[in-house]
Amino acid sequence: MILEKIEEPSDIKKLSLKEKKQLAEEIRKFLIDKVSKTGGHLASNLGVVEITIALLSCFNLEEDKIIFDVGHQSYVYKILTGRKDKFDKLRQYKGLRGFPYRKESKYDFFETGHSSTSISAALGMARARDLKKDKYNIVSIIGDGSISSGESLEAINDLGFNKTKTIIILNDNGMSISSNVGGISSYLSRISINTRYLKVKNKIKHSLDGTKYGSVPIKALSRIKDGFRTFLVPSKYFETMGLTYIGPLDGHDIGLLTKVMNQAKKSDKPILIHVVTKKGKGYKFAEENPDLYHGVSPFDKEKGVEITEKETYSSVFGKTMVNLASKNDKLVAITAAMKDGTGLTEFFNKYPNRSFDVGICEEHATTFSAGLSSSGLLPVFAVYSTFLQRGFDQLLHDICMQNLPSIIAVDRAGLVGNDGETHQGIFDLSYLSLMPNMNIVSPKCMKDLPKLLEWATKSHKIVAIRYPRGSDDIDLKEIKKVEYGKWEIVKNGGKVAIIATGKMVQQSYLANEKYKLNAKIINATFIKPLDYDLLKELIEKEYNILTIEDNVLNGGLGSMISLYLVQNNFKGKIKCMGFDDKFIEQGKIEELYRQEGLSIEDIKNNIELLKK
Amino acid sequence: MILEKIEEPSDIKKLSLKEKKQLAEEIRKFLIDKVSKTGGHLASNLGVVEITIALLSCFNLEEDKIIFDVGHQSYVYKILTGRKDKFDKLRQYKGLRGFPYRKESKYDFFETGHSSTSISAALGMARARDLKKDKYNIVSIIGDGSISSGESLEAINDLGFNKTKTIIILNDNGMSISSNVGGISSYLSRISINTRYLKVKNKIKHSLDGTKYGSVPIKALSRIKDGFRTFLVPSKYFETMGLTYIGPLDGHDIGLLTKVMNQAKKSDKPILIHVVTKKGKGYKFAEENPDLYHGVSPFDKEKGVEITEKETYSSVFGKTMVNLASKNDKLVAITAAMKDGTGLTEFFNKYPNRSFDVGICEEHATTFSAGLSSSGLLPVFAVYSTFLQRGFDQLLHDICMQNLPSIIAVDRAGLVGNDGETHQGIFDLSYLSLMPNMNIVSPKCMKDLPKLLEWATKSHKIVAIRYPRGSDDIDLKEIKKVEYGKWEIVKNGGKVAIIATGKMVQQSYLANEKYKLNAKIINATFIKPLDYDLLKELIEKEYNILTIEDNVLNGGLGSMISLYLVQNNFKGKIKCMGFDDKFIEQGKIEELYRQEGLSIEDIKNNIELLKK
Repeated sequence: MILEKIEEPSDIKKLSLKEKKQLAEEIRKFLIDKVSKTGGHLASNLGVVEITIALLSCFNLEEDKIIFDVGHQSYVYKILTGRKDKFDKLRQYKGLRGFPYRKESKYDFFETGHSSTSISAALGMARARDLKKDKYNIVSIIGDGSISSGESLEAINDLGFNKTKTIIILNDNGMSISSNVGGISSYLSRISINTRYLKVKNKIKHSLDGTKYGSVPIKALSRIKDGFRTFLVPSKYFETMGLTYIGPLDGHDIGLLTKVMNQAKKSDKPILIHVVTKKGKGYKFAEENPDLYHGVSPFDKEKGVEITEKETYSSVFGKTMVNLASKNDKLVAITAAMKDGTGLTEFFNKYPNRSFDVGICEEHATTFSAGLSSSGLLPVFAVYSTFLQRGFDQLLHDICMQNLPSIIAVDRAGLVGNDGETHQGIFDLSYLSLMPNMNIVSPKCMKDLPKLLEWATKSHKIVAIRYPRGSDDIDLKEIKKVEYGKWEIVKNGGKVAIIATGKMVQQSYLANEKYKLNAKIINATFIKPLDYDLLKELIEKEYNILTIEDNVLNGGLGSMISLYLVQNNFKGKIKCMGFDDKFIEQGKIEELYRQEGLSIEDIKNNIELLKK
Repeated sequence: MILEKIEEPSDIKKLSLKEKKQLAEEIRKFLIDKVSKTGGHLASNLGVVEITIALLSCFNLEEDKIIFDVGHQSYVYKILTGRKDKFDKLRQYKGLRGFPYRKESKYDFFETGHSSTSISAALGMARARDLKKDKYNIVSIIGDGSISSGESLEAINDLGFNKTKTIIILNDNGMSISSNVGGISSYLSRISINTRYLKVKNKIKHSLDGTKYGSVPIKALSRIKDGFRTFLVPSKYFETMGLTYIGPLDGHDIGLLTKVMNQAKKSDKPILIHVVTKKGKGYKFAEENPDLYHGVSPFDKEKGVEITEKETYSSVFGKTMVNLASKNDKLVAITAAMKDGTGLTEFFNKYPNRSFDVGICEEHATTFSAGLSSSGLLPVFAVYSTFLQRGFDQLLHDICMQNLPSIIAVDRAGLVGNDGETHQGIFDLSYLSLMPNMNIVSPKCMKDLPKLLEWATKSHKIVAIRYPRGSDDIDLKEIKKVEYGKWEIVKNGGKVAIIATGKMVQQSYLANEKYKLNAKIINATFIKPLDYDLLKELIEKEYNILTIEDNVLNGGLGSMISLYLVQNNFKGKIKCMGFDDKFIEQGKIEELYRQEGLSIEDIKNNIELLKK
């Protein structure tokens, strides 16, 4: 076992090419073995084994810096930078992170999670390096989906103009999370699937492998391939942006990758190395179905992932969309590369003309939705809570300011669990409720979701529907009728009222049953606007109030209720439960509820305090 | 006078080319005359006179749709679409808007204000058109600064891939608001200044003017110029993105523009027409100094704008930055095309290596700052409150999550006045305070700003410093000492405490003096974290409390104070003053304070209620 002997990243440099190839195989086995037990991102990591070995063969991590865009493809890097023993607790509570994490290793130089930040970050680091007159290398590894997002393009534009020494490894596996979209992706895939390229690639490889060109400077290297390049048409885009383009290269050829990276190091200009990889490489099931193996729960590695058709909020959303679309031909769906994740696959298949996947471009997706709405259609933009943050300005400035009827289906709201800090959907109630003309609703259970979505399609308003990852914990009765700005009394009780939203209604119900709290349980179906009539009644009848939300307290439901109560002669006691002012780490949702004070025991304790 | 006869946009079509040229001259006189009286955006409108006339000559606004990116260059369009009589109240309270506004005219199809939304919006409209099997044209007019922003690039990528029928007029005047930056701008300016191009341009013009090519289809038109294009090198970038490129054309040649637009209409593919214009065209002062005439206050049109060196928050910020930079070599400044507006010109001149203008790219600017900070520098990103909205996700995900020490200088916070809805900085307290690890401070007067900025540079924290447009209303004593999380007692008084932030401290002071309110006036120097010790004291001593902020109430200062008070046995009365849940129109700041209930009379009335 070579892998066993790798303690420090520099150990890689001591290996022969043959040993590195063996190491790649061992890493693949290790990945399949570990991730099948813990769950995690598999296919993308299987795709970057050779790239990562080549990186560590060429660069000196005591000086050079490497940034993984998105970061879920950093497992191989973690294995080779002293963290392989921690993979049994990958993505578990207090265990190894699934994304780069600076507190975990000095070799994690910049944390990622959301797409398309790596080139901007690399450029910032590069300017700092230049200012200090240092000379080290900064490398970002970015996928073909992420590079066509706005922030990446802004950074490339800056980089190409200022010609700052930086290396970008474009890991082109012909897919972002969902299917490819956009001119750049189309242009990349034209290269990758071009059979002429495949033949020529071998020539390039041999040229580089051969002693003849083995150690030529980067400028010459670029020239050598010019002959191929012009008729392969790959480089124009990045070259007009001012980058030196090298590629496409076989991303599973450690020798070739190492040679080219070693050349790239010598340049003082920005260089983009276009590398073609196979997502899921080396694991039959994942190669055949890389989407399915992008992120997986634990599975039997001999049998592969079992496809279960478990009902989730996302699947209920998707089914409802298909159903509503048959009755309303104005309804159209928009996704930013998350067609499958948001449950829209069937809608896309059934209504291809009314379906728009714009790629990892939440800014464009949001204004694009505004454009659709301004022309009389009803856009439903389905997006994860944490990624909608990218469309914040567009939502406020383009949709809300013009009050253009639109539906934002905010999936993965609240805690998402094992993806950790970068993916928790715990800010949306705050950043949405500050927007004028925005209305926010949330189903207390999956059964409520179709009713709320149908109501939203008929409302002629801007409606954000917020719902969590996964499915229900308990079976509650569905809401009878959705009325604008009206809350639902889930259960009557004594003089303490719980005002809860979404999954927190289930949590409150469980606490109330288990500990016989005799609380009045109110489902704040509408987070915005609040049910002011009901609030007035609670004030008049002198209720004590507990609010509970799976969102940060600053600017959330409890905050809005407090602002109202305190100015309207409320004389009772109130306690607001929600997340404190901090980021929340990875773990099982129940573990995190306990840690953050949102468990049913916490509800019991707070109710008891309010009863005093 | 031809202008007098233009009542409907279709009237333009009836004019001869000679009359159109005369109309252009009349419009220029009209613009200079009106804008010199009201103030407004001058140079950019002088630059698009011929483009706008050509647009209205070619397109039928009863069907076709036109979108102005940013929108401050829509005056000529407003003049020609039935609104010329309203220019005496341009940008005034209840008067003609300075940006497209749908309620103002059926010809304003989409509202703009922030940069780079027009192509996304156009594409949304185009898809809606195609779904309805309509055939009309959709045109967006976008500047060279705006087209290199991420959202534009995302939209072009989508457009080029899907080949949706759309026309983009790239209005290239060789400058965005500040100087040009980025590979695309550099590439555009290489074209525009190429003298060879200038000679060839005439040939193109004559070809198109001549009967020989006067009515050839767009495909042929593109071919005709191919010979020129390849050696002018202009088109590569947009063509690799999948657009048909035509240009560069003389943007002041109505005949040429009209011909090309008429051809472009016939295509069912996306077309980009690259037009070179002179900002400020036809007004000597503005041609010589287009930056100064971008946005102007009223001035004497014979003498031109007088340059006054009035001290403002921005200039104080800029001077302080220069001062601090001499003592701290880690301090670097970042702007997103707003070097002059944010007061950083001197810093950029004095410390060019420590200055970074990344263009209209707030996303990139924010993560880039994170990159700088992660490498040990101290980035100060100076940005208008409303534009920082574009960097929301990056601020939260890249800066705050990694807790990377950085300073965000949030200029133009609160009301900005005449720019109206799209530019009011009334959301930042809410969207910043929801972010863990974010600290927010605000100077009560210009004298406090250097002290707060200096404190921030030594704090090793993430600090947003929020300050308004313009200068002070009254002269207050500067803060003695900045202590983390501590508020300043500006004036002692009776049992009502006013907790105010920024300019609202001045407003409170004025009200207190004028109406002898005898209130205790507290400057909430820190909006986050709050001064919990002082709040406890106010609770214990049974104060009634008035909070006042020039921000929306949802999620702002009053909301955070309420959330704290209501959970900590506060038994007094509280009233929170701030903006209601709506967008705020244009007008003088005093007029808007009165309208929105933030005048000193409103303060008096609220204090009196709290005293009862």
